[in-house]
Amino acid sequence: MILIVAGIPGTGKTTVMTKALESHPMEFVTYGTVMFEIAKEKSLVQDRDQMRRLPHETQRELQELTAEKISAMTNVCIDTHCTIKTKQGYLPGLPEKILKKINPQTIILIESSPEEIIQRRSRDTRKRDVETEEQIREHQLMNRIAAMGYATMIGATVKIVQNHENKLEEAAKEILEILKGER
Amino acid sequence: MILIVAGIPGTGKTTVMTKALESHPMEFVTYGTVMFEIAKEKSLVQDRDQMRRLPHETQRELQELTAEKISAMTNVCIDTHCTIKTKQGYLPGLPEKILKKINPQTIILIESSPEEIIQRRSRDTRKRDVETEEQIREHQLMNRIAAMGYATMIGATVKIVQNHENKLEEAAKEILEILKGER
Amino acid sequence: MILIVAGIPGTGKTTVMTKALESHPMEFVTYGTVMFEIAKEKSLVQDRDQMRRLPHETQRELQELTAEKISAMTNVCIDTHCTIKTKQGYLPGLPEKILKKINPQTIILIESSPEEIIQRRSRDTRKRDVETEEQIREHQLMNRIAAMGYATMIGATVKIVQNHENKLEEAAKEILEILKGER
Repeated sequence: MILIVAGIPGTGKTTVMTKALESHPMEFVTYGTVMFEIAKEKSLVQDRDQMRRLPHETQRELQELTAEKISAMTNVCIDTHCTIKTKQGYLPGLPEKILKKINPQTIILIESSPEEIIQRRSRDTRKRDVETEEQIREHQLMNRIAAMGYATMIGATVKIVQNHENKLEEAAKEILEILKGER
Repeated sequence: MILIVAGIPGTGKTTVMTKALESHPMEFVTYGTVMFEIAKEKSLVQDRDQMRRLPHETQRELQELTAEKISAMTNVCIDTHCTIKTKQGYLPGLPEKILKKINPQTIILIESSPEEIIQRRSRDTRKRDVETEEQIREHQLMNRIAAMGYATMIGATVKIVQNHENKLEEAAKEILEILKGER
Repeated sequence: MILIVAGIPGTGKTTVMTKALESHPMEFVTYGTVMFEIAKEKSLVQDRDQMRRLPHETQRELQELTAEKISAMTNVCIDTHCTIKTKQGYLPGLPEKILKKINPQTIILIESSPEEIIQRRSRDTRKRDVETEEQIREHQLMNRIAAMGYATMIGATVKIVQNHENKLEEAAKEILEILKGER
């Protein structure tokens, strides 16, 4: 079972997945981390900051090598982005070629309300651009659109899981249904 | 003219279509029913409940045979789902291969407000999971996304028809414009 | 740099683009105009009204010739539609073949609130069907869906720019970031 898990910062993606995987252990890898490790092995970079400065062509090759490595795993949740917000706009995180190589059966979108996301972000010490509720709403919508587009390409399902404050158990339970392949 | 008509339970899809087809008779078939009849002819099943227990491979073959049978019809409205809500998430109802075989010129989405849908469902005797307004809103949005994705693949149009309480005539009139091929 | 710019009537698309292009001059062509000029050169039409009466096959050929002409330009913003609202529903404005020929790196969507759009339209003397806030909201959503679908096909980005009343400078600034290729 290969699953993709996405969710913008502040949705509590890692917390929900960690909770669900307590009851149903499964490998949980971050796409960007796997890609960085491949780049390091090839002596292309030494730290993560150097990744974005690699030529586009090299980045694309690394992305494909990562997809190949992941698709060889038989039971894995992949933490990645449906869309990446850049100054040039929303960039689809899963180009068709990569998507078909990974061929996940479900794309899980972890969401929260814009208010909750802003709250969680304010408690986070990492530096980030402050986003408005409207911008958060927009990003989550664009992720739904991208996810459903990916799903149509490969016949996967899209599961939207709301992670609301004090409802972690409920969110984890919905993830568990997917991990257990319930119908 | 081949049309696809979709709408979640409680939108009044059948009522609207029946009304419109009174003034403009046209064949109106349900994808699932045609598929069941093909399976019965092949002695694969005896009743509809057995359909979902067929192996995935067999289901896919039946789905393709259904698409072939329907694409041979020259003037038909096909009642089917844009996305199917499962425990694994939203499953695209029209894989690319099936969609290209049917090649509809328009995908009609019948919608209602979540409040109206809940009202209509409460008057319905069939057993169903009770859904919240938020869940209904989400499903209708995912259907719009899937429909527009299908349309882009094949150059079809997506027509959204609101079927509001006591506005059946208006909804039927919009469908009629499509059936008559108005520009 | 090839960019696509879309926005429904009343979003102030032309005003925003004109403002941005003051500081960063770049060719700004309208897809429909280029297409009309090609048709006129070929003596297929004399005025724009005749365009829509051309056989579908001819329209498609003209659309492709237009895409070829535009893709030969190296630095251009193309004013076109993500979806065209017809009585048959929303028609995708950029079929896959055309899109891949143009291969834009960014699709810019200019948006406004439904209230502002209605206001601007009421000041416009061109005759148009009056649309409700709900219809405007729906059309802008369908454009986002179509744009993200196109972006996924070709690996482009989708940039949504809000053009709110008295915030023209802010909107133009966001466009400028794209034109300058900021990361």
